[in-house]
Amino acid sequence: MIKNLEEIARQCRADILTMTTVAASGHPGGSMSSIDLLVSLYSFANIFPNDPWNEKRDRIVVSHGHISPAVYSTLAAYGFVNRDEVIAGFRHPSSIFEGHITRGIPGVEWTTGNLGQGLSAGIGMAIAGKLKKENYHVFVVMSDGESAKGQVAEARRTARKFNLDNLTVIIDYNDIQISGRASNIMYVDLREEYQAADWNVIEIDGHDFEQIISALKIAKNDKKPTVIIAHTIIGKGVSFMEDTPKYHGKPLSLDEYEKAISELGLSVDIEKYIKMREKLDIREHKQLKLKYEINIDTGNPKIYREKTDNRTALGNAIADLAQLNNNVVAIDCDLKSSVKLDILDKIKPEKLIEIGVQEHNAAALAGALSAEGFVTFFADFGVFGIDETFNQHRLNAINNTNLKVVVTHCGVDVGEDGKTHHALNYISAPLAWFGFKVIVPADPNQTDKVVRYVASQYGNYVVAMGRSKVSSITKPDGSLFFDENYEFKYGKIDVIRDGEDIVIITLGSVLPHALKAVDELAKEGINVGLLNVSCPFDLDEEALSRYARNKVIVVEDHNVYNGLGTLIESKLFNLKILPDMFIKVGIDRFPVSGNSKYLFNIYGLDSEKIKETIKSMI
Amino acid sequence: MIKNLEEIARQCRADILTMTTVAASGHPGGSMSSIDLLVSLYSFANIFPNDPWNEKRDRIVVSHGHISPAVYSTLAAYGFVNRDEVIAGFRHPSSIFEGHITRGIPGVEWTTGNLGQGLSAGIGMAIAGKLKKENYHVFVVMSDGESAKGQVAEARRTARKFNLDNLTVIIDYNDIQISGRASNIMYVDLREEYQAADWNVIEIDGHDFEQIISALKIAKNDKKPTVIIAHTIIGKGVSFMEDTPKYHGKPLSLDEYEKAISELGLSVDIEKYIKMREKLDIREHKQLKLKYEINIDTGNPKIYREKTDNRTALGNAIADLAQLNNNVVAIDCDLKSSVKLDILDKIKPEKLIEIGVQEHNAAALAGALSAEGFVTFFADFGVFGIDETFNQHRLNAINNTNLKVVVTHCGVDVGEDGKTHHALNYISAPLAWFGFKVIVPADPNQTDKVVRYVASQYGNYVVAMGRSKVSSITKPDGSLFFDENYEFKYGKIDVIRDGEDIVIITLGSVLPHALKAVDELAKEGINVGLLNVSCPFDLDEEALSRYARNKVIVVEDHNVYNGLGTLIESKLFNLKILPDMFIKVGIDRFPVSGNSKYLFNIYGLDSEKIKETIKSMI
Repeated sequence: MIKNLEEIARQCRADILTMTTVAASGHPGGSMSSIDLLVSLYSFANIFPNDPWNEKRDRIVVSHGHISPAVYSTLAAYGFVNRDEVIAGFRHPSSIFEGHITRGIPGVEWTTGNLGQGLSAGIGMAIAGKLKKENYHVFVVMSDGESAKGQVAEARRTARKFNLDNLTVIIDYNDIQISGRASNIMYVDLREEYQAADWNVIEIDGHDFEQIISALKIAKNDKKPTVIIAHTIIGKGVSFMEDTPKYHGKPLSLDEYEKAISELGLSVDIEKYIKMREKLDIREHKQLKLKYEINIDTGNPKIYREKTDNRTALGNAIADLAQLNNNVVAIDCDLKSSVKLDILDKIKPEKLIEIGVQEHNAAALAGALSAEGFVTFFADFGVFGIDETFNQHRLNAINNTNLKVVVTHCGVDVGEDGKTHHALNYISAPLAWFGFKVIVPADPNQTDKVVRYVASQYGNYVVAMGRSKVSSITKPDGSLFFDENYEFKYGKIDVIRDGEDIVIITLGSVLPHALKAVDELAKEGINVGLLNVSCPFDLDEEALSRYARNKVIVVEDHNVYNGLGTLIESKLFNLKILPDMFIKVGIDRFPVSGNSKYLFNIYGLDSEKIKETIKSMI
Repeated sequence: MIKNLEEIARQCRADILTMTTVAASGHPGGSMSSIDLLVSLYSFANIFPNDPWNEKRDRIVVSHGHISPAVYSTLAAYGFVNRDEVIAGFRHPSSIFEGHITRGIPGVEWTTGNLGQGLSAGIGMAIAGKLKKENYHVFVVMSDGESAKGQVAEARRTARKFNLDNLTVIIDYNDIQISGRASNIMYVDLREEYQAADWNVIEIDGHDFEQIISALKIAKNDKKPTVIIAHTIIGKGVSFMEDTPKYHGKPLSLDEYEKAISELGLSVDIEKYIKMREKLDIREHKQLKLKYEINIDTGNPKIYREKTDNRTALGNAIADLAQLNNNVVAIDCDLKSSVKLDILDKIKPEKLIEIGVQEHNAAALAGALSAEGFVTFFADFGVFGIDETFNQHRLNAINNTNLKVVVTHCGVDVGEDGKTHHALNYISAPLAWFGFKVIVPADPNQTDKVVRYVASQYGNYVVAMGRSKVSSITKPDGSLFFDENYEFKYGKIDVIRDGEDIVIITLGSVLPHALKAVDELAKEGINVGLLNVSCPFDLDEEALSRYARNKVIVVEDHNVYNGLGTLIESKLFNLKILPDMFIKVGIDRFPVSGNSKYLFNIYGLDSEKIKETIKSMI
């Protein structure tokens, strides 16, 4: 068996060099140091090319996604993918074999590339295994350089907390990163740090197959999360590449390539691949998007008549969904009672996953958990669930997860906690996460419907809300607007009050204030229309074309430079509609700390200020 | 002395309770557990109310900014601030005593509140002390809950790497956080983790003044970074508050308050403060903005005639500035040769601060370093320097730092590294960081001018550029557009080619492609105007009013939903200008991996595709 692995690895080394030289791009150095580990791991793990997505398969996450040549060549060697397609297509736009490994390629569980996130994803998969009572094992392969990322420290502790004996980390410790020796750039005492989080630590020679296989056996069978620190040599296998930082991200020239291949004792017809590549069309390949069927009982809507915060409606709806469905989970970052996951905690504590003040790790593992079949609510304050985890959610979006980012404490509605806590980017930031949709419900009744809706749809959603208790939105006759018969339709604009001469467009926690203003102005004989835009990314053109022609004011508890107002401007501009007057009210600077009642007044969001603005428009 | 500290702490405990009860908001629990530490520390440290910003002062960073009542009461006790103003104004919009402590209040070095960032800021200050050869000491007070943040692990290693014996961390280990016991929520083995990073560890009773002072003495004088783990009791000093999570973020009712004050053996006229508060105006207080004079020799511009990447111009300009000025530093995250800081490294290695793959910590410490008088370049790939560090830069902006975020590898110009590495938010994300300005230079000559310009201005800037080599932009006569006589003026739109019927508006790495298209179209008799918008946040209304009336195409290597095109739409909408035709070209989905030449073609950014689009507009 060992002999066989050696032979496979030798062939893979050649493939690594061939594909990077053919592409004139890529990372051969780290690929050569990792290859013996990968060849061993894919041989050892319970995953097979004829059924690569079998639910019971072992999961392999390669966190340092830039060693894609090593991963692809291993997958080709074991029959997961076609070897010629890999070598000719590597890093070509028409090929699925991108620069960084991509989820959806058989044998690739997670798209990585932004370092330090892979272990969190693996932990999500390991927690999913425990929840599903599946016996699969999760292997995470990492580099030493990325071990410096703080998110890795967060992930380590999480593995201990949940006693993830179904998790093994393998570190390719080649001690070289882009700028030099890893130990000089930023020394990480790997053994000490993993032991501080109570992991088993095994150190091996990462080029000795017997040691690798034996370590994998121990790691798979012990009762703790285990890290295998594999001492390796960058560029291993080709004399002039060994232990040189130069080949981290630089392919060999043709001359160097010939020399290297002959050192490996192989011969490759590289011209064949160069010609195959030249024939490839310059076009975008189809994106690989794994998803699953959603079967969710969304239960019955809960109706709120008393003044309630949207958070409570959120917490109730999540608890209800978790009660009705076995595949609903929620992630908390030490804000249980504030984001109202305490309601879930009381009835289904096993479905509340508490990660503490470790938002990066929490967001990434939430994404992976959602990809494993769980409708996953990641609950947090807006500022942590959006701003702090911006890049983690971007990677979730890339991975086409099924995540519901439910953020409370958005806007100056946060109040006294002040500018560090005023989340003002809950509309704008998700625009960067292609595929994410944003919904900002206005009152507890709409919140309830929205939470049940997003649970029933595959895909990534942000549901954003404020902190304060709000009155339920009512129709002119005083009955509930979002009542038993209301059905949430994504993208629909709610016409709360009819009126076309002056129209207020708003969303979220401003709506109750705007409604108060409109109803009071009506008593003064001033008729003002009121639109609620709960879905700022997909604006209802028909409603806007009708209502946004004359005098328009957009009011939002959001950054005024990139929120609802800007999206409406853009939409109207493209519809070639220039209203007679268009005023945007929102937050244009870091706000101060204070009671949200005061802040709504100061920043022009309360009914008094809205009335003043309306009157100034007449 | 100890007796005195005890007495001060007793008074501070009363003040903590008074201000939170008067405000009906705030965090009394952790304030009570931290107060003995703070009272000791401000007494021990070399900082005095009569000259609180003395360059030689010890720096005290309180990372868990929500214990502001403890900080404010301590500052009042030692005469840094007025006690009545604190108690009556706490968390009121007209008061500088915000919910989270704010840089600029005498004795407060850093605005905190987003947990886990304070140690990085302290490290920035400690590195600044070493660079300035000042003997001050930096004390960072933290909570146990926030110790779970990965950024703290990054910071710890950084302290070891730079041998920061001028740094001491004090952890308020009360073992309570919002959702319960810290050790249950996410256990952090503090001693083991700090020892794994080779820190001195001292454990004390955080309510025993002798132990506190003695630990501070040891920590200040030893030759390593030291952590003092102070075991404390939340709510300490009031029987019914002790060791109860409930009072983490909840003030006492008036009844509870009376009981607590009497337990403390004090009497307070709380009515006086309630009345004082009632008289406060409901208005925004003036923001506290510390800054310093910039005296920078910006040197002589370097002229590039050959095809060069903007990164090289960046690296050369930074090296030149560091050669000419002692107060210029650059931060690298293991991308030295890619972001061209290797040029600086060769001539001034002591000014290149290498933090490794620890971007969160790097961004936060860079901000603090810039606040300490260093013109600080934080160099990184766009995806790490913008997306990954979104919330760190937001906190830098809040702290009014003088940071130059210089990001390379923006856009699909990154090429083969693919979607995880395509930074598409370098314009949109900084809109969230109020006060930040964005500049996207087009060629190496403009890059050189821009880098020298931002160094000469106090404030936060993003300078964003691509990866590829680009031709220098030329005038119609073939001479350099950004030549020796060109002066960069922030906000000015460069009219590269005149023409008003069809106008291309672009920036950055697309400009050379657009220029090629325009010059080739001219040969076909099609006259197209070309504008370069290097400052997308501050659009030149005059130029837009003149050139953007007829047929307009905006092309950008950026997310098309929130980039230059959207900002121009918003500007034209507000100028009430509806061009006859307006086309936006940019990236509307996660791109594939491939040579940037191919990607520019696929996504409509190269000269061929631009020409096609123009022709379709005629």
